Amino acid sequence: MRFVTFKKRDETLRAGLLIESALVVDISEATNGILPENLIDFIEHNGKNLKEAEKLLSLTLGNKGVYPLDEVRLAAPLPAPKSFRDFYAFEQHVKSARENRGLKMIPEWYEIPVFYFSNHLAIKGPEDQIEKPIECNWLDYELEVACIIGKEGRNIKSDEAEDYIFGYCILNDWSARDLQRQEMKVGLGPAKGKDFGTSIGPWIITKDELENLRAGKGFDLSMKAKVNGILLSEGNMKDIYYSFGEMIERASAGVTLYPGEMLGSGTVGTGCILELGTEVHRWLEPDDVVELEIDKLGVLKNSIVND
Amino acid sequence: MRFVTFKKRDETLRAGLLIESALVVDISEATNGILPENLIDFIEHNGKNLKEAEKLLSLTLGNKGVYPLDEVRLAAPLPAPKSFRDFYAFEQHVKSARENRGLKMIPEWYEIPVFYFSNHLAIKGPEDQIEKPIECNWLDYELEVACIIGKEGRNIKSDEAEDYIFGYCILNDWSARDLQRQEMKVGLGPAKGKDFGTSIGPWIITKDELENLRAGKGFDLSMKAKVNGILLSEGNMKDIYYSFGEMIERASAGVTLYPGEMLGSGTVGTGCILELGTEVHRWLEPDDVVELEIDKLGVLKNSIVND
Repeated sequence: MRFVTFKKRDETLRAGLLIESALVVDISEATNGILPENLIDFIEHNGKNLKEAEKLLSLTLGNKGVYPLDEVRLAAPLPAPKSFRDFYAFEQHVKSARENRGLKMIPEWYEIPVFYFSNHLAIKGPEDQIEKPIECNWLDYELEVACIIGKEGRNIKSDEAEDYIFGYCILNDWSARDLQRQEMKVGLGPAKGKDFGTSIGPWIITKDELENLRAGKGFDLSMKAKVNGILLSEGNMKDIYYSFGEMIERASAGVTLYPGEMLGSGTVGTGCILELGTEVHRWLEPDDVVELEIDKLGVLKNSIVND
Repeated sequence: MRFVTFKKRDETLRAGLLIESALVVDISEATNGILPENLIDFIEHNGKNLKEAEKLLSLTLGNKGVYPLDEVRLAAPLPAPKSFRDFYAFEQHVKSARENRGLKMIPEWYEIPVFYFSNHLAIKGPEDQIEKPIECNWLDYELEVACIIGKEGRNIKSDEAEDYIFGYCILNDWSARDLQRQEMKVGLGPAKGKDFGTSIGPWIITKDELENLRAGKGFDLSMKAKVNGILLSEGNMKDIYYSFGEMIERASAGVTLYPGEMLGSGTVGTGCILELGTEVHRWLEPDDVVELEIDKLGVLKNSIVND
């Protein structure tokens, strides 16, 4: 199943279920309030809620709570995930980005899946405009997959982590490379270079839908990024070095994970301008349109504006 | 005024107001629900709520909703702040911690107040036990002041930042130094070394109460840390290099800050074992008791247990 958050004319955010590519079901309206109005609440009790939502897949236009997709506006499927840990799990991205700066690969990268926390309160959705920070001249996109936690747990082992996953979506970890470069010299990692915005969507697909695509430590999902229609990035999610299970094991060691927390995969190889080099494409500018496309996860499209 | 979150016998968390050092007022119960039951909701509308709360300061034992402090249990004043950015604003701490590792001071540190995001979902309160992560052998405390945001804003300038502050409390940024050292080699900063727990409390003091103590870029507040009763750390909040106003300017550049977000000051000089050196004190072990004491902000006491 594919879940969204959307607005009808009244501008209230509502949790929705996609039917084919044409309809969205307001899951609360269609079930007379049995299912909740927002997706975080849905995910918190997704065991029973998924069973209830399954019944809605047979609805058609004319049924209560069913709307043509082109008459609503999609927002970020989780407008405020409970937290956002971003990992660094694709080897090629780390290698190439370091090589571009004349740096060797880090041995510790192969020992542990490393992450940093980013701003879970600055989440954007499909079609949202991304405001280029005033002091940023090197604006970049990052092509990633996000994993949404579906069950509370602590000290979760990678081989049991599947139970704790709700689903997946596309994630664009927008990056102000100049701000990031400056702050990272102080040693606390990227923060200001990343916190102005992260876009996710257009939908969250439940994990069962990807089961038959397992490959390597991930899934056989083609990943692409286009800037103003020009294909710049092309990778595959199956090339990930650490599985989401291994990332969940790392994230939950000594810490409780809650439903609605979000883990980013890190950028797929070739998945940003920093890695490609500015001889391939200049940094992003206002009016640029960036489209991230991942099999099964859809297309996440955003344009850039000045702050 | 000093605000707390506490539990009566029924184990539900309630927002409270301290009177002297002996009584706590359940602000919702005492106002028949005019004031909210939790402090995050209180802070979100603190303009009108503070006026209402002021009326409660004259209550005494016997009035509705007033309890002896020693008959309730204090929790973290904000059990889940909306986010947690930890800065690095005391020069002596950064200098000494780097010198101990044979590293020179970083020029960029003097250009911008740098922070990292940490886990706002792993907050502990006064008297809570801190679980030493299984893989950690180098457990440390960090003596910090936290600033609680009281008003929504974006691109806030430091000279107008005062308006956006609700108040202050003690913060202990517990650190697994061995995990932190390993992960920081990968360049994404501290995350797993910090996310198992941060304790705050015992209360949040409103900003007006510190106004007459302004000194340097901070306040004239003595800061101390004791381990098992032995004084290890001693500093003063007035020695901070960046004001909270400057930190708010940095945090809010291109990003909306919301009421209930939390900023940490970073560790005061001498405020952790990493800086003092293990010849002064060994790393923390189960059964150790750590007390952080800051003038006006109280004493935050926690003990260590095995995870």
